[in-house]
Amino acid sequence: MAETGPDGDNGRLYLDDLQVGHRFTSGTHTVDEAEIVAFARQFDPQPFHLDDAAARGTLFGGLAASGWHTAAIAMRLQVDGGLPLAGGIVGTGGEFGWPNPTRPGDILRVESEIIEIKPSRSRPDRGMVTVKSDTHNQRGEVVFTLTARLVVPRGTSG
Amino acid sequence: MAETGPDGDNGRLYLDDLQVGHRFTSGTHTVDEAEIVAFARQFDPQPFHLDDAAARGTLFGGLAASGWHTAAIAMRLQVDGGLPLAGGIVGTGGEFGWPNPTRPGDILRVESEIIEIKPSRSRPDRGMVTVKSDTHNQRGEVVFTLTARLVVPRGTSG
Repeated sequence: MAETGPDGDNGRLYLDDLQVGHRFTSGTHTVDEAEIVAFARQFDPQPFHLDDAAARGTLFGGLAASGWHTAAIAMRLQVDGGLPLAGGIVGTGGEFGWPNPTRPGDILRVESEIIEIKPSRSRPDRGMVTVKSDTHNQRGEVVFTLTARLVVPRGTSG
Repeated sequence: MAETGPDGDNGRLYLDDLQVGHRFTSGTHTVDEAEIVAFARQFDPQPFHLDDAAARGTLFGGLAASGWHTAAIAMRLQVDGGLPLAGGIVGTGGEFGWPNPTRPGDILRVESEIIEIKPSRSRPDRGMVTVKSDTHNQRGEVVFTLTARLVVPRGTSG
């Protein structure tokens, strides 16, 4: 996990390894009802994230994961190899959307694409990389879109 | 918690109650090291979120909460009265930034402001409200900025 320098990073990518259009695919995570409810109890205790019966009478029409839970699952999928960046995945901000809810039983996967690479002028050891990531479910619906600005160390791997 | 209609919502606000410039302040949450590490183990297992010694040699210079953890804490503060909207807090997307890290011992509070209100043309029962929320720590530093688009039911309270 630690940043280990150009010769010992297990193939993780530095700024100078990346190209616009480079794409990555994560593994999958199957979301179950218990984890939806556990996350909601801790961070987003609203009825549509806690109880299927209560959720029926809301905009969601049934139990749905907190959007922040979906975001956190997407992060885990990227950390677990879905976005193999040297120095780890360190974001400064971005834009996001939740076009569809995450439901119990959904199998999520993240597809990411490098859309911009900017070496830093003030910090020659790093640059900013913009990554667009779509989190899909098993029906091909997008449940989370994220365009994130990440800090990536300069150099090349291997 | 449930949406109960204009006459039983405990003062929570409908679209027609809101005005641009309307501001809200949440309660506070003190973040401890154990919760930073627990969140990171589940969703963002990178060394700078897991272990203070490992974090020293990284960009963060010491243990820092996952940005998604900070986002989730901000959500909880808003759900717990920091943003009293009828129908709950239901977002479709937005923009965000993490200008400073969240550290163990930080006391977080969310300040929110209504910046745009748009009744829906296609759905006369609701509208979209844009809310800018800054999450501050006890030193007045902003650790999370969020400009979120929320769905809010029409009507007035009380």
